[in-house]
Amino acid sequence: MVEAALDTILAAMPQAGEIARPERLLAAMRHGVLNGGKRLRPFLVLESAALFGVKQDAALRVAAALECIHCYSLVHDDLPAMDDDDLRRGQPTVHKAFDEATAILAGDSLLTLAFDILASPETELPAQARLDLIQALSRAAGFGGMAGGQALDLAAARDLPDEAGIIRLQAMKTGALIRFACEAGAIAGKASSADRERMAEFGSAIGLAFQLADDLLDLTSDAQTMGKATGKDAQAGKATLASLHGPDWARRQLRGLVLQAEELLSPYGESANLLRAAARFVAERSH
Amino acid sequence: MVEAALDTILAAMPQAGEIARPERLLAAMRHGVLNGGKRLRPFLVLESAALFGVKQDAALRVAAALECIHCYSLVHDDLPAMDDDDLRRGQPTVHKAFDEATAILAGDSLLTLAFDILASPETELPAQARLDLIQALSRAAGFGGMAGGQALDLAAARDLPDEAGIIRLQAMKTGALIRFACEAGAIAGKASSADRERMAEFGSAIGLAFQLADDLLDLTSDAQTMGKATGKDAQAGKATLASLHGPDWARRQLRGLVLQAEELLSPYGESANLLRAAARFVAERSH
Repeated sequence: MVEAALDTILAAMPQAGEIARPERLLAAMRHGVLNGGKRLRPFLVLESAALFGVKQDAALRVAAALECIHCYSLVHDDLPAMDDDDLRRGQPTVHKAFDEATAILAGDSLLTLAFDILASPETELPAQARLDLIQALSRAAGFGGMAGGQALDLAAARDLPDEAGIIRLQAMKTGALIRFACEAGAIAGKASSADRERMAEFGSAIGLAFQLADDLLDLTSDAQTMGKATGKDAQAGKATLASLHGPDWARRQLRGLVLQAEELLSPYGESANLLRAAARFVAERSH
Repeated sequence: MVEAALDTILAAMPQAGEIARPERLLAAMRHGVLNGGKRLRPFLVLESAALFGVKQDAALRVAAALECIHCYSLVHDDLPAMDDDDLRRGQPTVHKAFDEATAILAGDSLLTLAFDILASPETELPAQARLDLIQALSRAAGFGGMAGGQALDLAAARDLPDEAGIIRLQAMKTGALIRFACEAGAIAGKASSADRERMAEFGSAIGLAFQLADDLLDLTSDAQTMGKATGKDAQAGKATLASLHGPDWARRQLRGLVLQAEELLSPYGESANLLRAAARFVAERSH
C-alpha cells in the first residue's frame, strides 16, 4: 500500500501550482524511493495511526511523506562528499545511476515533496493535525534532528566523540525520524499528550535498537547479506556503541530495549501486537 | 527586519522537538543566509502582505521561510557538482568556507526549516492559511518548480533547449519562487482567488523581468560589479533569451514587463507604490 501511494504521488503529471516534472529528475526520485526498501518507518506510522483511529488513507499519506524524507536522506548521505556509497539495497545509488547534480536535486525534491503531501487537503486530517505533523517532522528531520546528526556523524570520523556524544549523534541521525514515525499516529489521531509522549518514547526505544542492530551488523555481517558495504564504521575510524562495548553487550542491550518497548505499549493491548513484533524485528534483523 | 527575523530563527538554542543544533552546521547555515543578500523575495512578501491586511510579524515569518528556501537553493546550486561557483555576493560560497558535505547538509536544513517556520504557531495566521502557504511554497520550490528548473538548466548545457524550453526552464528555476513571493501575501490575508491570481501574475511578470535582467547582466556586466562570476552562460554554452535576441531586444522586453506589472497592480492604488518601484528595480538593476 505504501509502495502504491508513493508510486501515485511520484507520477509524471504535474499538480496544480507545478509547471512540469522534468523526466530525468523524476526518474532519479523514483529510483531513490521505489527501490525495495523495508518501509519500516511507514509501517510504524500505519500501525501507530491504527491505535488512535486514524483513517488508513490519511495515515498512508503521512507514511509516504515520511518515507520521502527518509529516502532523500539516503540519496544525499550516499553522495561522494558524504558517505560515498556506490551501492544501496544491492542497487547503484542515485548519483551512480544518474549523476551527482541529479542526486542532489532528487534529494532536495523528495524533501520538499514530503511537506507538500502533508499540507495537501488530500491528506484528510484536521488542519491543526496536519500543521502539527509538519512541524514535528521538520524538527525531526532538520538541523536539530536527522540532518544535524549526519553532520555530527561526519565530524565523528575526524574527532572521536565520547559515549554521550555517540548517543546524541545516533538519537539525531536515525532516532529522530523513527521517534516521529511512532508519534505521528498519535498526532494525526489528536491523541492526548500522554499518549503522544508514550508513543514517542516507544519510537526512541526502537530507534536506539535499530541503530544498535545496524552497528552490530556492520561489525559482524558481510556485504552480500546486507546489500551494502559493511565494516565501514571501523574503516572510517568511527566508534559505535557496539564497537565500544562489543557484540555481547550490544545483544544484551537489544533485549532490554525490546522489553522496554513492549512495556510502553501495554495500554494498547492486542491492537499493538504488530508494533511489538516490529520492535523484535528491528532488534533481531539480519540485514 | 528580515535580517533580524532570520538571525533569531537561526539562534544556537534548540527548539522543542530538536535535540541539538550542531555548531558548525549552524554556522554554515548562517553563512548561507546572513550574507548581505538583496532580500528581494522577502520584500515582495512583506509588501504583498501589507496589501491584504496581514500583520507584519506574521508576514516577516513567511518572508523568512521563503528566504531560507532561496538561500538553500543558492548553497546547493553553487556546489562543484552543480554550477561550481567559489564566489557569491563577493564572499566564499558555503562549500568553500566550510566543506561540500556541510554545504549539502546546510542546504537541506534550510529547506527543512522553511516548513517548520510556516507550520509553527509563532506564525500567527489561520491554520488553513499556513497550510495553503506550505503547499504553494513546496510546489513552487520542488521538482515541479525551482528544483526542477535547476535540473533543466543543467541539462540545457548538454542539450540546447528551444525558446519555449528556455521560457519554461526560467519560469521554474527563478520564476516560481518570485511568483510565490507575490502570491504569499494574498494567501496569508485570505484574499479572493481573483486577487491571489492577480498577485501571482504580477509575480510572474517580475520573475520574467528578473531573469531577463540577470541574463542581460551576464551578457554585458563584469564580475566586480556583480560580486560573482559573469559570462558563465556563454562559457557553459547556455542559451538565454537575452543571448538569443540580443541586449536591445532584452531591454525593450524589460520595459514591457514593467508596464504589465504596474498595470496588474492598478486595483491597489497608492498602497502598491513600493511594489511598482520593485518591478522597476528588478528590471533596471545593475547587479
